[in-house]
Amino acid sequence: MSGHEQTIRRYWQCAEERDWSGFAEVLSPDVVYDMSQTRERVIGRDAYVRFNQEYPGDWHLALRRVVADDRGATSWLDVTVGGETMTGITFFTFDDDGLVTAVDDFWPEPYDPPAGRPQVVERY
Amino acid sequence: MSGHEQTIRRYWQCAEERDWSGFAEVLSPDVVYDMSQTRERVIGRDAYVRFNQEYPGDWHLALRRVVADDRGATSWLDVTVGGETMTGITFFTFDDDGLVTAVDDFWPEPYDPPAGRPQVVERY
Repeated sequence: MSGHEQTIRRYWQCAEERDWSGFAEVLSPDVVYDMSQTRERVIGRDAYVRFNQEYPGDWHLALRRVVADDRGATSWLDVTVGGETMTGITFFTFDDDGLVTAVDDFWPEPYDPPAGRPQVVERY
Repeated sequence: MSGHEQTIRRYWQCAEERDWSGFAEVLSPDVVYDMSQTRERVIGRDAYVRFNQEYPGDWHLALRRVVADDRGATSWLDVTVGGETMTGITFFTFDDDGLVTAVDDFWPEPYDPPAGRPQVVERY
């Protein structure tokens, strides 16, 4: 397992355990968190730790997959809040010291298939 | 650049150029394409090539980012159809020969920020 993959596994483990000092350790002081779907941004490690620490709801994370290379990483999470499970996808960027400098989150939601799809699709 | 990153860059370049034989070359005959948001699935290389080939609209792809390791890869695309630009995120799984065996697509859409976010968020 690469160092960056280990970092991301630790990052999510710390979040799930509400270990906010461990969570902060993998972040650059200048980290930028960006949610392009809502056009929201959080700038800086302290603000970003607080964002997660104060995020409402009894949320729980299960990591399905991590892909990592020498510049970045991506994770795919099942995020459960109450009885609802959502998909959370995150792109990470690292600096040369292996700290996370950018976090880009995506929250794809269920929707109905559009009309006109080619006739090779199965529903499940 | 890793072999898997090269494969994914070539995959999207072939799609953009409608080079369907080049596109098919990186796919396993048993590839499974899964869109969990709509619970749709396409099974097999021929069906999956046809799905892309016949997909309606004058779509164009711009690759923002690829992350790849020895088991898989992720890409982040801007997909433009007419005047609209969407985000497309894809997880790829490879076999030992470097062919793509699984493609998992996500299409996150804009939404309004929920109430109760911690007070460290900026809108843009």
